[in-house]
Amino acid sequence: MRSESLCFAFRPAACLAALATLAYAAQLPAQADPEVHESARHNFRVVTVADGLVNPWSIAWLPNGDMLVTEREGRLRIVREGRLLPEPVAGVPDVRARGQGGLLEVCPHPDFATNQLLYLSFAKPNEDASLATTAVARGRFDGGRLVDVEEIFVADAWAAGNAHFAGRLAFDPDGYLYLSVGDRGASANLMADHPAQSLEQHQGKILRLHDDGQLPADNPFVGRADAKPEIWSYGQRNPQGLAVHPLTGEVWENEHGPRGGDEVNLIRSGANYGWPVVSHGINYDGSVYSGETHRQGIESPVWAWVPSIATSGMLFYTGDQFPWWRGSLFVGGLVGERLARLTLEGDRVVSTEMLLPGAVGRVRDVRQGPDGLIYLAIDGRRGPPTAIVRLEPVSGEVAPPL
Amino acid sequence: MRSESLCFAFRPAACLAALATLAYAAQLPAQADPEVHESARHNFRVVTVADGLVNPWSIAWLPNGDMLVTEREGRLRIVREGRLLPEPVAGVPDVRARGQGGLLEVCPHPDFATNQLLYLSFAKPNEDASLATTAVARGRFDGGRLVDVEEIFVADAWAAGNAHFAGRLAFDPDGYLYLSVGDRGASANLMADHPAQSLEQHQGKILRLHDDGQLPADNPFVGRADAKPEIWSYGQRNPQGLAVHPLTGEVWENEHGPRGGDEVNLIRSGANYGWPVVSHGINYDGSVYSGETHRQGIESPVWAWVPSIATSGMLFYTGDQFPWWRGSLFVGGLVGERLARLTLEGDRVVSTEMLLPGAVGRVRDVRQGPDGLIYLAIDGRRGPPTAIVRLEPVSGEVAPPL
Repeated sequence: MRSESLCFAFRPAACLAALATLAYAAQLPAQADPEVHESARHNFRVVTVADGLVNPWSIAWLPNGDMLVTEREGRLRIVREGRLLPEPVAGVPDVRARGQGGLLEVCPHPDFATNQLLYLSFAKPNEDASLATTAVARGRFDGGRLVDVEEIFVADAWAAGNAHFAGRLAFDPDGYLYLSVGDRGASANLMADHPAQSLEQHQGKILRLHDDGQLPADNPFVGRADAKPEIWSYGQRNPQGLAVHPLTGEVWENEHGPRGGDEVNLIRSGANYGWPVVSHGINYDGSVYSGETHRQGIESPVWAWVPSIATSGMLFYTGDQFPWWRGSLFVGGLVGERLARLTLEGDRVVSTEMLLPGAVGRVRDVRQGPDGLIYLAIDGRRGPPTAIVRLEPVSGEVAPPL
Repeated sequence: MRSESLCFAFRPAACLAALATLAYAAQLPAQADPEVHESARHNFRVVTVADGLVNPWSIAWLPNGDMLVTEREGRLRIVREGRLLPEPVAGVPDVRARGQGGLLEVCPHPDFATNQLLYLSFAKPNEDASLATTAVARGRFDGGRLVDVEEIFVADAWAAGNAHFAGRLAFDPDGYLYLSVGDRGASANLMADHPAQSLEQHQGKILRLHDDGQLPADNPFVGRADAKPEIWSYGQRNPQGLAVHPLTGEVWENEHGPRGGDEVNLIRSGANYGWPVVSHGINYDGSVYSGETHRQGIESPVWAWVPSIATSGMLFYTGDQFPWWRGSLFVGGLVGERLARLTLEGDRVVSTEMLLPGAVGRVRDVRQGPDGLIYLAIDGRRGPPTAIVRLEPVSGEVAPPL
């Protein structure tokens, strides 16, 4: 049984409730009473959990309550009992920390409690450092450092630039590991010749692997001579968020469009998500590369932001702390400096709400803690060192649902 | 052939192009160069077409290019060759102009060019003026006044208050006439006993009639002793917008929810839209009357605004002036003082954009003119006399679609 499947941002509520007994809240240092933010359904405060981090990218928890945070420069940090440990975890692979690249996602194995396996995605340089790609390493976390670290997968997405690595990781309920790989900044003008539309390389794809990086035999393009068999879906641009739906087990993704056209997609096996031949977006200079927003044979997005917010981490909320938000999909915004909440009916978005516009900075990741609170990684980019914060409910005039 | 079906906000483009030869634009007086508003896809100016109107509620056009505007106090006005005629049209029925009631929609018959029939909805008082309801009158417009005026339908939605008359009208491609009737302000606390949930009265319903007000034999509740046979759908609160989809011919509706929970709905024959037993909204005092946002057997909205914007008139845009907006659904906001644009994929909303927030005031109606421009009725409510304005494209850096 995978009861410790801590990489899911969206475990069953029962599991969460059990984990909440860790009484995470009581471990945090006292802080001055922060401002109350109002929303349509819940009022909340934003409380700093850890600061002094540099470009935090990904948040995860271990069964003992430790919070793991990656810093893009190449450090894996631990927040234990409300305190950021000064020493990073040793054993992390070397990364190419330039531009958008570096140490990216941290994701515990669903069976971490028994196997102590941690997964890290990162920007990997080639031998002479002229090129880089997206890769995944796995190691055993012995409580202080990573040991037995091995690269379990290196994407064939080599490019000289340092853009669009993507690198999100997620396990589905059957234990398959998904990796998002960006288009590495290839020109949209390539249109149908764009690598995101080619099955012969990994740029602009969602990949599906076994937990050891090996190939699942039932992947959609297995056996085709003209396709990389790890591909699960294609036509992605820069997929910055992955989350598995808590009820259906389906993989949802978000990606950066060009100017306009950030997308949330429901990822289906073998499907084409259209970049760059079909998009709601336009070029940054205002010119149009595609007048089509949909086309037969290309999956339409579940949601598109026009203008873009520069999406990031993604969460299906299942906790008890914000009852009205249960079932909502949260998506962070970088340039958009906000937390978007999408209300779903099945796989349709029927309402949206913008939380914290301009109030906390660039939201790089959004996750649900074992306490049912919502945690954000705030990425200051070129600003001062930044923080992990969390949303805590404030009882107000809005009553909980029946 | 119904080529002059001017009540459709979304005639075929061919018809629009023909009507555009009326060169409506050239008829307007010169104005100081208004501010350019930017949006993700089109830049535009807001130009005043007619001002000095009092609570304009509904806009429609005649084949000769005349624009008709209702003023809620009970006047039907004509804008001819860019000039508001000083005299209102004679022959309009007496209305109860109190609160939200008064003269409401004006809608030409689809065959107006041959039969000159105009439809008006209005708040109708009873004999001693103690009660009022929503009614529809039809008359022949002889170019100067309405003649042969008859009440073709009086809803069984009598109440003492002056709230939630609704009163939008729309013809579908088969010539059926739809009328929206509000819940007349009945308390949400009635829950399942609320009149919007009862088939024995017209409150909180979309009704379907023949063009003479008679009953179509194929309405969903015909033949049931416990139901009003005019009912097409039920469970509406205050349906302030009706529009027929230009491709499918289906009726779409919007309605005011309580605090939170304004809805856009795709109206299906015989369906229940849930008010007040299921809603995304809450009471104005912050208390909750329903914790359910969906339930088996109740239609979920296509879209919900949380918080509410107080929706109003509605338009499927099909014109040539704003190519990127073709196929978008526009909804006016009263309290929200904006024009909402919803991008559709079939019957799903995949993106939204807020236009003109706080820039023009309360938007009571939004319609597409014969020139392909977008016209708004601005309802100042308690402020100064207000206006009909239109959005005119400004060529900018955003290129048109291919």
